Amino acid sequence: MDVAEMKSRLAAAEVAHLATVGDGDRPHLVPVCFVLADDRLYFAVDAKPKRTRDLKRLRNIAANPAVSVLVDHYEDDWSKLWWVRADGTARKVGDSAEAGRAIELLMARYPQYRAARPAGPVVAISIERLSGWTGS
Amino acid sequence: MDVAEMKSRLAAAEVAHLATVGDGDRPHLVPVCFVLADDRLYFAVDAKPKRTRDLKRLRNIAANPAVSVLVDHYEDDWSKLWWVRADGTARKVGDSAEAGRAIELLMARYPQYRAARPAGPVVAISIERLSGWTGS
Repeated sequence: MDVAEMKSRLAAAEVAHLATVGDGDRPHLVPVCFVLADDRLYFAVDAKPKRTRDLKRLRNIAANPAVSVLVDHYEDDWSKLWWVRADGTARKVGDSAEAGRAIELLMARYPQYRAARPAGPVVAISIERLSGWTGS
Repeated sequence: MDVAEMKSRLAAAEVAHLATVGDGDRPHLVPVCFVLADDRLYFAVDAKPKRTRDLKRLRNIAANPAVSVLVDHYEDDWSKLWWVRADGTARKVGDSAEAGRAIELLMARYPQYRAARPAGPVVAISIERLSGWTGS
């Protein structure tokens, strides 16, 4: 898979899996809805029910910004399996203009966000490396 | 979601996402086909095309056995989203009887593995903590 194809599959995926590293060098994993803008991937803490907005994913990123993001396709025909992984560096977006633009992009992409604007915070991931695999 | 429900959703998922931690405390992420047996989750390195069987996931686990495994469901109706996460400790299975049993369980679960028996190695993950979330 070439880089253009990896970017295209990443950009089109509706959900990604975000791995961060936490206390005691333990990995942490959550699904995220996101948008790809240039070589940056944005996601927002949203209105879906959560116990708190001081989330573990945010605490982990503050302590260790290295993240990995995976999108993948599964079906019974394993020759059609594929995945794309983006490794990069995450930061909580402090600039309100950048956070606002990211939220607009997320709302443009997901009708569910147009119905309930994500409050944030917003996280930006600068993609440093793309990897991809297909079963065929 | 109670523990029985988390286990049931985890056991039924066809694909999971495995996060390990590698060099420089960077997370690493791949999809895996797996089987749940008691409180252990097994996956095998299989015959799908790969450059090498000395895989990064195995090197990471040897250096740091802490892993996180996520299964999730996505659809446009976000009230139906859910995920289940299993955090635990991974080890490459050295005992050939245990590895053989795990491969049999994987073959019983996946017809694709009956067509092409996974060569291994096999990894066992002892689940230490289950977490779950639903959008409703």
